[in-house]
Amino acid sequence: MLHNIARLKTRLSRLGVPLRPHLKTAKSIPAARAVMDGPGGPAAVSTLQEAEVFAAAGVTDILYAVGIAPQKLDRVAALRRQGVDLSVVLDSLEQAAAVTEMARMTNDRIPVLIEIDCDGHRAGVGASDPQLVEIGRALHQGGAELRGVMAHAGESYSCRSVEALEQAAEQERAAAVACAEALRAAGLPCPVVSVGSTPTAHFARRLDGVTEVRAGVFVMFDLVMAGIGVCAVEDIALSVLATVIGHRADRGLTLIDAGWMALSRDRGTARQPIDQGYGIVCDIDGRPYPDLIVTETNQEHGIVALRPGSTAPQVTLPVGAQLRILPNHACATGAQHDRYHVIAAGSDTVRQWERLRGW
Amino acid sequence: MLHNIARLKTRLSRLGVPLRPHLKTAKSIPAARAVMDGPGGPAAVSTLQEAEVFAAAGVTDILYAVGIAPQKLDRVAALRRQGVDLSVVLDSLEQAAAVTEMARMTNDRIPVLIEIDCDGHRAGVGASDPQLVEIGRALHQGGAELRGVMAHAGESYSCRSVEALEQAAEQERAAAVACAEALRAAGLPCPVVSVGSTPTAHFARRLDGVTEVRAGVFVMFDLVMAGIGVCAVEDIALSVLATVIGHRADRGLTLIDAGWMALSRDRGTARQPIDQGYGIVCDIDGRPYPDLIVTETNQEHGIVALRPGSTAPQVTLPVGAQLRILPNHACATGAQHDRYHVIAAGSDTVRQWERLRGW
Repeated sequence: MLHNIARLKTRLSRLGVPLRPHLKTAKSIPAARAVMDGPGGPAAVSTLQEAEVFAAAGVTDILYAVGIAPQKLDRVAALRRQGVDLSVVLDSLEQAAAVTEMARMTNDRIPVLIEIDCDGHRAGVGASDPQLVEIGRALHQGGAELRGVMAHAGESYSCRSVEALEQAAEQERAAAVACAEALRAAGLPCPVVSVGSTPTAHFARRLDGVTEVRAGVFVMFDLVMAGIGVCAVEDIALSVLATVIGHRADRGLTLIDAGWMALSRDRGTARQPIDQGYGIVCDIDGRPYPDLIVTETNQEHGIVALRPGSTAPQVTLPVGAQLRILPNHACATGAQHDRYHVIAAGSDTVRQWERLRGW
Repeated sequence: MLHNIARLKTRLSRLGVPLRPHLKTAKSIPAARAVMDGPGGPAAVSTLQEAEVFAAAGVTDILYAVGIAPQKLDRVAALRRQGVDLSVVLDSLEQAAAVTEMARMTNDRIPVLIEIDCDGHRAGVGASDPQLVEIGRALHQGGAELRGVMAHAGESYSCRSVEALEQAAEQERAAAVACAEALRAAGLPCPVVSVGSTPTAHFARRLDGVTEVRAGVFVMFDLVMAGIGVCAVEDIALSVLATVIGHRADRGLTLIDAGWMALSRDRGTARQPIDQGYGIVCDIDGRPYPDLIVTETNQEHGIVALRPGSTAPQVTLPVGAQLRILPNHACATGAQHDRYHVIAAGSDTVRQWERLRGW
């Protein structure tokens, strides 16, 4: 984990742009402290529960990076009254009206980033959509703080080459910068240009005009990121400890006590060139067994087998043997657990880091 | 939920066999009390954590229905010392040796069900495998209590007709009874013949020779069960409350604040004739919108759209509108939450039921 954090920070500092880490992957106060530049942030979160818990732990610069719903503005206002610089994200005039109404009611210029669609992935205003300036004006004139724009290159997850990743990063940067310029050309402020996803953060060649980069899953990494080529399997800092509970020797299957409850139902590698099932099976020290994956899961059962077509030798794992499973998706697998058991390199000490959950 | 419970209990009482409800779906003490015959059970659980929590709440007859690992026998012994009639499941001589060793060490005849494979689904000894009697003898002579056999027709989830479901139920019954008879023919005791899955429990036409039926997900039901034909969509007693946070009108998409963190990554209907995506979208009162489903999820974003090929009219749901999502898989969706908000029929009172989690 520390290696992963250092790698991205070194990279971004060479490009001259600070990191706003997304805390939704680890969802843990000690992990947040390990990745943030200082105890106050900056940070991004995916729920107001995260904002509340991290604020209580001293984080003061927080971007709530999921489109705001009107019903959530009371909690936003409460956090801001406590002195937290909490900013919100939106992409419609309806949301802008709700935010400016709350800003006027609370006499607090709630800071807003307008979400930009850079790749058709999910939310956001199109870079050439006239709504962008309309939303910006509604916010600025309505009493909110138009702080800037935010883009997320979610489609970078389907990239399959360095060139494609570099291009996704440039597309994300260019869309965000173009929108910032459109707002400025209309006489509106746009101090913040926020971009990011773990793949684009690791492959951007230039970040001119960008003021911050967001990334989350890089702290742990996972098999989806390894499949895209953003990390190596050895960089994955999260595993699920499992125990062998049986065999079906006739079919070359081993049963373990980690099912989808422990691993999550995430099958993010199913659409990648190498399908890792529900995860790569390693020995207790984290060394992968050749071609051994979790092929199927039920609630508390995992089925371990050689991947289809493998010619690797059958591995005999006795009942009671302990294994580590590397996950497809660190955010989803972590979310199935209440705490991490943290192993410091070169040490036998195991610490526990609590995770938060809920909304 | 109460209707679902009454339906299965009425059915099983006509067949003359008691229900041992599996508590892994709801994982909640009040829900357990609603489904069990009495405060002491019987019940089945999927983790020792469940056994410990339900035992502390007064449940005394518990089957831990996942193959036992040697490392877990200390916790089994501790629960049994507290007076809980906790039984375990196994399907190998290795596990039998570990259990008999613990039984001798603690001077406690740990009760064991031998798991039977009735359909090649997962674990279990084949019905004609000579290992069955060997394991039975090792347990009986080694100081454990050979209590019986257990079968789970997991393959019933792929049935697509009443005939197939009835056949899966009969296959499960016949395999379990044949194994019980094989043990008895070898001079071994086999008082318990335990079968069950929600589909087979609802479609068994006879249960001769069976002493108990297990089922879990029927308490809530879900879209997978509706797809198999075990329940109607209106029987589904669990939904996720979500809020609209945006639109992509150009593509007919609505964004909601329920992603896989709230819905789970379960895609159990993907292999069924009607793929429900990540769930059916209903209004706040639980009435489904025609053909409207959650087509994609990210961590805290859900994308709502008409199912592919639908000719239903586009539904306009304003930002802030509240929706209910019916889940593919109640066990997986419930597991993403710490509590249920329980609505009594014909009442405005909303109670909260805590869920347990962990291992």
